[in-house]
Amino acid sequence: MKERVLTGDRVTGKLHLGHYTGSLRNRVSLQEQYESFVMLADVQALTTHFDHPELIKANLREVALDYLSVGIDPAKSTLFIQSMIPEIAELIVYFSMFVTVNSLRHNPTIKSEAKQRGSTDMYYGFLGYPVSQAADITFCKATLIPVGEDQLPHIEQTRKIVRRFNDLYAPILLEPKALVGPRLEGIDGNHKMSKSLGNAILLDSSQKEVEEKLKKAKTDPSRVHKNDPGHPDICPIYGYHAAFQPDIAADIHKACSEGQLGCADCKGKIANTLHELLEPMRERRQVYKSKPGYVDEILLAGTGKAQAIAKETMREVREAIGINYFEDMITR
Amino acid sequence: MKERVLTGDRVTGKLHLGHYTGSLRNRVSLQEQYESFVMLADVQALTTHFDHPELIKANLREVALDYLSVGIDPAKSTLFIQSMIPEIAELIVYFSMFVTVNSLRHNPTIKSEAKQRGSTDMYYGFLGYPVSQAADITFCKATLIPVGEDQLPHIEQTRKIVRRFNDLYAPILLEPKALVGPRLEGIDGNHKMSKSLGNAILLDSSQKEVEEKLKKAKTDPSRVHKNDPGHPDICPIYGYHAAFQPDIAADIHKACSEGQLGCADCKGKIANTLHELLEPMRERRQVYKSKPGYVDEILLAGTGKAQAIAKETMREVREAIGINYFEDMITR
Repeated sequence: MKERVLTGDRVTGKLHLGHYTGSLRNRVSLQEQYESFVMLADVQALTTHFDHPELIKANLREVALDYLSVGIDPAKSTLFIQSMIPEIAELIVYFSMFVTVNSLRHNPTIKSEAKQRGSTDMYYGFLGYPVSQAADITFCKATLIPVGEDQLPHIEQTRKIVRRFNDLYAPILLEPKALVGPRLEGIDGNHKMSKSLGNAILLDSSQKEVEEKLKKAKTDPSRVHKNDPGHPDICPIYGYHAAFQPDIAADIHKACSEGQLGCADCKGKIANTLHELLEPMRERRQVYKSKPGYVDEILLAGTGKAQAIAKETMREVREAIGINYFEDMITR
Repeated sequence: MKERVLTGDRVTGKLHLGHYTGSLRNRVSLQEQYESFVMLADVQALTTHFDHPELIKANLREVALDYLSVGIDPAKSTLFIQSMIPEIAELIVYFSMFVTVNSLRHNPTIKSEAKQRGSTDMYYGFLGYPVSQAADITFCKATLIPVGEDQLPHIEQTRKIVRRFNDLYAPILLEPKALVGPRLEGIDGNHKMSKSLGNAILLDSSQKEVEEKLKKAKTDPSRVHKNDPGHPDICPIYGYHAAFQPDIAADIHKACSEGQLGCADCKGKIANTLHELLEPMRERRQVYKSKPGYVDEILLAGTGKAQAIAKETMREVREAIGINYFEDMITR
């Protein structure tokens, strides 16, 4: 049996280049060797958007199109919808019995996100985010999780939950490993590209939109004239060269540092590279969009496959805990 | 449509007289006018017994027998098993998005139980107990909940959750009311009869066991001689008279206070009353026990009925939140 990979995204908006370098690129290559699961995390999206669920419905199929357009192949990867797997909620409930409130409060990502939201209080579901991720990962017994580094504490918490469960009941769950993808800077120089910060280049941008975004992008602020020596290491545009054409990044670094490559030309070069990257995505998106109902069929088939796996895992979990009272019962 | 009543018990041990006065007696009478649901709360039992799940399996059918023996009629009441209703877990997850950690921490029952357990830390699932009760109540749209008074804060929290949900999404859930049953003292004079305190008279006790328990029971400690005037208001035995034969309780009160009724005679009187109460229960228990598989059939039929209701409620909930992406899909 092939090892399983699980990834997913909260479906609160379209995906961008930061998602691509951080995780999507890995997903495309991993689907060749692994059994691959890609989750449209609509329930997790509610942790921050419970009062705007319309955004979730509006973005679900767009995110699915993002997946398909980057080259996630529905014949190789299982695309599924989180809210249609009730077993994830059941696992959350069982795990939450033995996860302490303090271990969640001390999770560095929960701490910093709570701080960002500037509130001393917190929603119960938000505090339980790591428990919910543990349920996502374990229901399908995924062992490799491509994530951004801010998600590492959650993977560590999943590993602890798996060990505790296996120790308490029976060794049926698998400990996952993280595969960290590089972070991409925003066009404003912020350390993280993020749709909510307004500094992102969306995967479904037209070439014109890409070029406009790049035009507005920050570069080295100390560089006044085109021939001033630049500092590529503090420039997001150089970060994009490094991320999308690593083979020539060293040359760009040198030319910028020596004042031989001006910012406008440098932006022009990355615009071309992004065109080469994004144009095939635009074409694939069109193909999937042009067949009515095609995306829905893919999501339903993938969700059906995930449901079958979830059902089998829950059967094992009930048996392990010892709450399988009617062995011979026909479950609904 | 009849209004619905929901009640339930954590299946960590057999039920006792305190359960009877606090809730079971109400359930028996309410099943005549209401559509009645009785939940075997095996998942909630895990909040305190996650490391001893074998107790849950061992007690599930015993608690079901307790229900049947007190006169809960499977033709009138739906007996079901909590862990077999995944929609309860799903509702917990959806509710937890908009319930704050502080509102749970400040719940008086959670606070005092946490204190009792003497820990500054708390399990995440234990903290979420009120959210879980809200899910139990709302999945079947129960509007009347017979409880002990320690459960009142949970019912109040359920009402808040229902109002918030209906306000955020659509007015589909119903606000429940509590029906408080009287508390019964333990035989040691502790204000609450409780199996874990070892001061309980179990419903399936033999008459001999009842009499032995009563013999050990505390009475008014200032009463040395049989003819000393007693203080019935501080005596658990008087509490039992008041609970089980209220029509003659005033006479007993007077006779005790005037030193005309000694403790041994007084205990003899309540022993007789309990015999009249418990003997028909013992007989019914025997009837249900004597038919192999009968209790299992009752539980499966009831759980099946509850599952159908839960499925319909979840359909409405998904529609209200707007995460019903495939209206025409055949759900599994």
